Amino acid sequence: MTVNRRFLLMRRPHGMPVPEDFRLAEAAVPAPPPGGFVLRNCYASLDPAQRGWMDDGPSYMPPIALGDPIRATCVGVVHASDNPDFAQGDWVMGLNALEDYSAMVPGGFTMKLDVSQVESPSRFLSAMGAVGLTGYFGLLEVAKPRAGEVLLVSGAAGAVGSVVGQIGRIAGCRTIGIAGGAEKCRRLIADYGFDAAIDYKGKTQAALAAEIGRLAPGGVDILFENVGGVVMDASLLNLARKARIVLCGLIAEYNLPEKVGIRNLWSVLVQEATIFGFLIMNFAPRFAEAAPIMAEWMAAGRLRIDEDVQHGLENAYPAFMRLFSGANTGKLVLKIADGR
Amino acid sequence: MTVNRRFLLMRRPHGMPVPEDFRLAEAAVPAPPPGGFVLRNCYASLDPAQRGWMDDGPSYMPPIALGDPIRATCVGVVHASDNPDFAQGDWVMGLNALEDYSAMVPGGFTMKLDVSQVESPSRFLSAMGAVGLTGYFGLLEVAKPRAGEVLLVSGAAGAVGSVVGQIGRIAGCRTIGIAGGAEKCRRLIADYGFDAAIDYKGKTQAALAAEIGRLAPGGVDILFENVGGVVMDASLLNLARKARIVLCGLIAEYNLPEKVGIRNLWSVLVQEATIFGFLIMNFAPRFAEAAPIMAEWMAAGRLRIDEDVQHGLENAYPAFMRLFSGANTGKLVLKIADGR
Repeated sequence: MTVNRRFLLMRRPHGMPVPEDFRLAEAAVPAPPPGGFVLRNCYASLDPAQRGWMDDGPSYMPPIALGDPIRATCVGVVHASDNPDFAQGDWVMGLNALEDYSAMVPGGFTMKLDVSQVESPSRFLSAMGAVGLTGYFGLLEVAKPRAGEVLLVSGAAGAVGSVVGQIGRIAGCRTIGIAGGAEKCRRLIADYGFDAAIDYKGKTQAALAAEIGRLAPGGVDILFENVGGVVMDASLLNLARKARIVLCGLIAEYNLPEKVGIRNLWSVLVQEATIFGFLIMNFAPRFAEAAPIMAEWMAAGRLRIDEDVQHGLENAYPAFMRLFSGANTGKLVLKIADGR
Repeated sequence: MTVNRRFLLMRRPHGMPVPEDFRLAEAAVPAPPPGGFVLRNCYASLDPAQRGWMDDGPSYMPPIALGDPIRATCVGVVHASDNPDFAQGDWVMGLNALEDYSAMVPGGFTMKLDVSQVESPSRFLSAMGAVGLTGYFGLLEVAKPRAGEVLLVSGAAGAVGSVVGQIGRIAGCRTIGIAGGAEKCRRLIADYGFDAAIDYKGKTQAALAAEIGRLAPGGVDILFENVGGVVMDASLLNLARKARIVLCGLIAEYNLPEKVGIRNLWSVLVQEATIFGFLIMNFAPRFAEAAPIMAEWMAAGRLRIDEDVQHGLENAYPAFMRLFSGANTGKLVLKIADGR
């Protein structure tokens, strides 16, 4: 392959992204920068956070510049190198972009991978990557669950949510998952071991709140929030005293030009609850301590992380949109090339 | 006086309370219950929390029953007693109601007062009461300010807000207050020592956010939130990383039948901020440790707590409404009787 296909951001989406916001362009394969290397990206992570990076607002990362490729965590194989530590054929993970080849320098999130220990290199984007570890650190280090507590997870069939529920169960919590549709709710219990599942589709805030209340009559001790909107407002009406809320995502809001807003913050006040804004990036130095624990749970059949692998840079747009249509279950990954 | 006038809740307000929601009725003066006493209520605290108690929703206290008098923290003088520890003429504080006489039993929030140490017994409803100590514990124990941090206070000219700003200054913070109107903003700086004041009146969220940003270009480390609504949303756009938000009140929302909602919670996420729902009640066992410190600050001229004293049970409705019209500055108190 002699061209570098790149999936570019051409304009900032207004609400839900449309195909015209992007363009698949061709460029020359870059040369290794001094002391760096070029990675053949094989798998790219597709995450709700990328939608935020497309907006021109303040965030924990600069917005993607117009004309630049969509920023993405990728795993791939070194294609050409000016650095003996990163030899041709080595597997590497880094914050690259939706493109065939990325010029990289060591540092930041860049790290070499031992792919011999996993069935697919994509595992470093799911279980052993930010998503799996978001569940691990967000639940265990931020919410600090105690056995017997009630854990409510929104977006529970998603990549992060399904991990949170399973680790919550390992921690001895009673776990309730909220997801959209009967099939996802079936999987919450059958595949991810939730004690109860709630289908939010077609329900008002009052109906949702009542359903949560029936399943958690003593209130919710930990709310792991991935969704926002009506689902979060219904959950807030069921907080136990001193509840902890891990604010991990607000996917219901990301594509709304006019945000809906959270109306039940008063419940946080009267229940003396705490909301923790949570980003996984700052736990990166501790990933190495968590990965073997996650691997052990997976080997023992206590933790299952599904991947939804879509194929081809040319499918980047429809693949990305699976995050918002409710189509995907498990960690969404775009396979760009084989690598091995 | 042989009758007991009582300010009753006759129906639950829909949005802003109207006079027809209440009735001033007359009843017989109660007899002391066994082991208890009857208090002649002299001063009653008027607080935004009372608006919440008028609603029929879940809260940290049961709603006021229809036909019951409006629950209120009161200080008064023992009128008749069946308990030697509470002798006729003793000053007592308790969670009573807007009425001339309340039958009380020891326990709960009931405590005897030494009024010789204060210029007016109403001080136990302001500086030495829940309001002053809300500022003390909310700022010092929940937000834990460090010298040099930026403290933003909404409702800054109110009873709690003005205390928070002054204690923040004592703690070495740079203090910015938000209030409604030029006169209140003048007082923030002249009377309460804020470093800067912002008048929110007539401003959009974007304009308010820009004004906060100019005054706190490095972001707000501590947001002491008394208001909610647009003011809170504008503040959330200016959080520093790891900001702490003390959620103490949401007065902008209390009278809205349809809550507006907070749209910028995403900023809590990306800044890894924390929102602490805060009630003063659970710090009640520690009031005795804070009161002498507050007294010392007041004596040294470092802390000023204004009282807005309204007069007469017959004025309970217009007095209470001063909380929402923006008319009151300082702690709103209803004087029911002289007592001394």
